Amino acid sequence: MVVKVHGPTFTAATRRVLACLIEKGIDYEIVPLDLLNRAHKDPEYLKLQPFGVVPVIEDGDFTLYESRAILRYYAEKYKSEGTELLGKTVEERGVVEQWLEVEGQNYHPPIDTLIVHLKVFPKMGVPADMKLVEESEEKLAKVLDIYEERLSKSKYLAGDFFSLADLSHLPATEYLVNDIGKDYMIRDRKHVSAWWDDISSRPSWKKVLQL
Amino acid sequence: MVVKVHGPTFTAATRRVLACLIEKGIDYEIVPLDLLNRAHKDPEYLKLQPFGVVPVIEDGDFTLYESRAILRYYAEKYKSEGTELLGKTVEERGVVEQWLEVEGQNYHPPIDTLIVHLKVFPKMGVPADMKLVEESEEKLAKVLDIYEERLSKSKYLAGDFFSLADLSHLPATEYLVNDIGKDYMIRDRKHVSAWWDDISSRPSWKKVLQL
Repeated sequence: MVVKVHGPTFTAATRRVLACLIEKGIDYEIVPLDLLNRAHKDPEYLKLQPFGVVPVIEDGDFTLYESRAILRYYAEKYKSEGTELLGKTVEERGVVEQWLEVEGQNYHPPIDTLIVHLKVFPKMGVPADMKLVEESEEKLAKVLDIYEERLSKSKYLAGDFFSLADLSHLPATEYLVNDIGKDYMIRDRKHVSAWWDDISSRPSWKKVLQL
Repeated sequence: MVVKVHGPTFTAATRRVLACLIEKGIDYEIVPLDLLNRAHKDPEYLKLQPFGVVPVIEDGDFTLYESRAILRYYAEKYKSEGTELLGKTVEERGVVEQWLEVEGQNYHPPIDTLIVHLKVFPKMGVPADMKLVEESEEKLAKVLDIYEERLSKSKYLAGDFFSLADLSHLPATEYLVNDIGKDYMIRDRKHVSAWWDDISSRPSWKKVLQL
């Protein structure tokens, strides 16, 4: 069964899902969605994803949205195929879940604000709120200091194995490093920098960036 | 092994964890934390929870934070004990995960803003930002309209079974209904209202409120 992924390949949430499908060796088909023409607010799309955001997957007659829920679903469904992404024990999975939550609650939001104000708004001719930009960078710096400490003790976030916790950080960090000139936030932290080099050089991520 | 739960019993995240432990019949011990005296920023506490928020659990020498990660850990570790909270199939769990993410990303944040501005700030003598209150209520109303549609088709969020997805909504909804006078947001929606009556009358939740 080929998994249909509805969503444009440049959004963080869609890229997160694609990276997971590639790591697991699952066949997928991208169903492009024209966000500029508000295709994500179309009644047909809202039947699949009532909140009107991307992505949503269709796998036969099973549909699922929320990118991090989709990651967990495929990592569990195909546990023994491709890269093991949830750890080997229930405790390892617990720690994977902890860092997945940290990514969703603490890491992604300030980067999202930076992207909106430093990349999206300029394209639309809307002035950035530089006070908010500064506050978001301060928040993110504190989070990254905790990551630096963590990654000085284990190679990956959840332990000495690559997992969904790391994978989920790929899209936002890619924007931070390569799109809005904030690469110093990663590069100024030795262990975070080495971790980023490691996870961003995975073939799955390189493939996502080519899509 | 008795699970130590560090955190005051009035916070949403701690209550979420306690409700889960009670549903699973797991013995716990609450380690109170004096937030007013900034015990959550104490170096000893930061060793357990580097972000300085509550709760964190200690289970023997295993520690874990992020309330929704703790829910998943115990629901999986004790899958066959107490209430089944993750569904029976990998698809059911996928849908549980979807609604857990919706709760964390779409439902909790606007309620959190309402609580801060309508309950916490008044106690501190800080004026509420009424424009932000209004925006948060609008956001939440849209989310609740989607819940109303969903709950017209299934008894609980993830299907016809109570799960972590429902449980995770208990703390914020309790505040909304009983602490800041916004009960009409639940009561004006027939299926959301019936769902709230159902889940909030569970013995586990009544016990949490007595702690």
